[in-house]
Amino acid sequence: MTQNCLPEALTQKLTEHFQQRFSRGESTRLQHGRDESVHQPQLPDGVVLAESTEDVVLVVKLCAEFGVPVIPYGVGSSVEGHVLAPSGGISLDLSSMNQILAIHAEDGDATVQAGVTRKQLNDALKGTGLFFPIDPGADATLGGMAATRASGTNAVRYGTMRENVLATSTVLADGRLMKTGGRARKSSAGYDLTRLLVGSEGTLGVMTELTVKLYPIPEAISAAVCTFPDVDSAVQTVIQTIQLGVPVARIELLDALSLKAINLFSKTTLAEAPTLFFEFHGSPASVAEQAEIVQAIADDLGGTNFEWATRPEDRTRLWQARHDAYFACLQLKPGCRCFPTDVCVPISRLAECIAATNEDIAQINIPIALFGHVGDGNFHLVVLVDTANEKEMADAAWISQQVVERAIAMEGTCTGEHGIGLGKRKYLPLEHGDVAVDIMRAIKTALDPKNLLNPGKVLPPAP
Amino acid sequence: MTQNCLPEALTQKLTEHFQQRFSRGESTRLQHGRDESVHQPQLPDGVVLAESTEDVVLVVKLCAEFGVPVIPYGVGSSVEGHVLAPSGGISLDLSSMNQILAIHAEDGDATVQAGVTRKQLNDALKGTGLFFPIDPGADATLGGMAATRASGTNAVRYGTMRENVLATSTVLADGRLMKTGGRARKSSAGYDLTRLLVGSEGTLGVMTELTVKLYPIPEAISAAVCTFPDVDSAVQTVIQTIQLGVPVARIELLDALSLKAINLFSKTTLAEAPTLFFEFHGSPASVAEQAEIVQAIADDLGGTNFEWATRPEDRTRLWQARHDAYFACLQLKPGCRCFPTDVCVPISRLAECIAATNEDIAQINIPIALFGHVGDGNFHLVVLVDTANEKEMADAAWISQQVVERAIAMEGTCTGEHGIGLGKRKYLPLEHGDVAVDIMRAIKTALDPKNLLNPGKVLPPAP
Repeated sequence: MTQNCLPEALTQKLTEHFQQRFSRGESTRLQHGRDESVHQPQLPDGVVLAESTEDVVLVVKLCAEFGVPVIPYGVGSSVEGHVLAPSGGISLDLSSMNQILAIHAEDGDATVQAGVTRKQLNDALKGTGLFFPIDPGADATLGGMAATRASGTNAVRYGTMRENVLATSTVLADGRLMKTGGRARKSSAGYDLTRLLVGSEGTLGVMTELTVKLYPIPEAISAAVCTFPDVDSAVQTVIQTIQLGVPVARIELLDALSLKAINLFSKTTLAEAPTLFFEFHGSPASVAEQAEIVQAIADDLGGTNFEWATRPEDRTRLWQARHDAYFACLQLKPGCRCFPTDVCVPISRLAECIAATNEDIAQINIPIALFGHVGDGNFHLVVLVDTANEKEMADAAWISQQVVERAIAMEGTCTGEHGIGLGKRKYLPLEHGDVAVDIMRAIKTALDPKNLLNPGKVLPPAP
Repeated sequence: MTQNCLPEALTQKLTEHFQQRFSRGESTRLQHGRDESVHQPQLPDGVVLAESTEDVVLVVKLCAEFGVPVIPYGVGSSVEGHVLAPSGGISLDLSSMNQILAIHAEDGDATVQAGVTRKQLNDALKGTGLFFPIDPGADATLGGMAATRASGTNAVRYGTMRENVLATSTVLADGRLMKTGGRARKSSAGYDLTRLLVGSEGTLGVMTELTVKLYPIPEAISAAVCTFPDVDSAVQTVIQTIQLGVPVARIELLDALSLKAINLFSKTTLAEAPTLFFEFHGSPASVAEQAEIVQAIADDLGGTNFEWATRPEDRTRLWQARHDAYFACLQLKPGCRCFPTDVCVPISRLAECIAATNEDIAQINIPIALFGHVGDGNFHLVVLVDTANEKEMADAAWISQQVVERAIAMEGTCTGEHGIGLGKRKYLPLEHGDVAVDIMRAIKTALDPKNLLNPGKVLPPAP
């Protein structure tokens, strides 16, 4: 792992220009060559800490000249191996590109460097009356979130990164700087390059700046927790809420094991049963109205212990607990890693999909928590594995495949928000068909003919 | 115009297969070689009336074999020359592909053939409690609307075709059938080919089927008309409404000349002054609340004659008048055509942009009406020209250019919803820069290497 495969001339040029910001040390490389999941680390040959778009241009140009891969890196919160370096190369760390370039409060948008995290942006928005809603749990960079088309708890109301990136500055494979999109709320001017980049996982270009939509902080916010006798009743509550068109801002399902993990981790005393977390945004009257409708649906389906949190500190505690669910689950089994799943199905199939998944869970002897953004039809299994245990890894791979194949058979997707990375490549043709994958490959070749931008990700190896 | 440039062998094969559905008659070719705007007709060499995806595959394959262009055609409601045939070829008329393939009421989506029109879809949705909101005025086909990334009056609340197409079936330049997207509400699985096709104006593939989002018909709907002392007060009302985050469903501006045209055409008696048309969707309480806020803003800004229409028939009459504005304006000057403009700017620049536009209007001696979807920052000039009058055409071209260059300077777009077609190609590099246009060209070459799909549209001639 200490072997350096970079061409000597490239090493020299990077050292000259970046000095301390270019590192070949093993700890830095290890830090950049692993993610939050079960993927085994694959180290880059060096790491450059970029501080400007010009830095990115320079690194990409040099790497193009020497035929060396470039892997964009934010904070490493990916769970599908996006930041790993299977072909070596330079990990291009954008986390220091964290300037907020402009906040246009009157237009509801902000332009930021790609290394700005969602919490940093929301801190900067204090006093404007606006917020940035996309919330994947981790305090990810906006560049990383755009690259994986991230979403999270608020997507049911505010959409995903697909709907919320208006414009980008992107460094292309040959080092040219491209501007895409614009600040108009809509446009019919040419191919939608912005949305081609959103979700492209660093394989078509390195986004260095983003313009994102902001939203007025609702006049009233109310959150609630409700316990159900079984997962199915909770899911039916979700389905009816969505089908009625209640503009719920968040509607999250957690199963009994998730609640147990949360209670242990967050010192809460929530009932350890299938639970929905809700949040409603709007005027006081509209929030009250939404809450009334949803409570009536939940009551009909056996929901109990409806607890309201209208004070900001109570809401924060509640949602912090929800966000900690992933890390809380990891604590259930010391030393384990998470084998993540991330399917999303049409809401009409959600109950059936989760029920069948629970039958799968019953068949294997690994702790598996289930939670997710069920308002979108998206849920995760947190499969807690000892990566050294072959049986556990095989079981985890089995249930992951079961869940993905079932979701695709239900006209859903193998990944609602995590992205393809390395882990889901084999499912891309199953989900989209060979022709679509061929066209994705043609686009990749057109934009990155030498295959140097995050090579090996998204597209399965050519047949 | 009667010359037939099709290879004899192609003519023979098309005649054999399509019989009466393949036409080389001049009237059919003329009907397919012109649109609703000032563009001079450019006739295709033949027209095929497709009835199935298989028909489309066959035509595209044959045309690829013989190197003949294919121009997809819906109902011809384009205003930027999209359906013209500057290089001849086959106009592929999809209007008979008008089957509604599936309505998934419980998931809020429908799958339709590309020739289904928005009104036809809404008729088919009767009884489901759902509707399809995108409304560009004309009863366009959904395929055409997707191709131009259309929007219209409801976009401020429900988004454009960009946000509302979930999936497509698309015939590629070589005749292969590709599926893109899926029915899950969100996905991070691979490049967003659906959004690459939406807005590609038939240059990357021929969409034959679409899955679109549907929305619950609001429990309450209320519409209103309000008159203002000047355009600026009306625009300020819009800006404040949007900045406050009022979830208005429609907010349309019409200037005094537009109102005069509407009164003449629709036999209405609306005040002939700058006017806003509003529509509010929601629960009865939420609609009342939204209306109260907006009325208070309008009152502060000198809005008068606030008239409410809550009965469905009154609302229909009101919005029919709004939709007829374009045709009503055309009646102001018998025999004229419309030179359309379609800019969209960030809302904070809207008042300034319209004020400067009105100064331009004062400089030329042609009737020009101004109206638009101002909640999005999008407005149109209906410049009424005699196409045989060189001075009028030059003046219209001048004001169009003024308006576009101003919008782009304000970080807006040269087209909010009409598309690039032939008419706006020269502005594409100005808006997006040469690098982005190069990348669009690279994508076009990757997907359509022989340049046979709607050639000459979107991309400016190579430098």
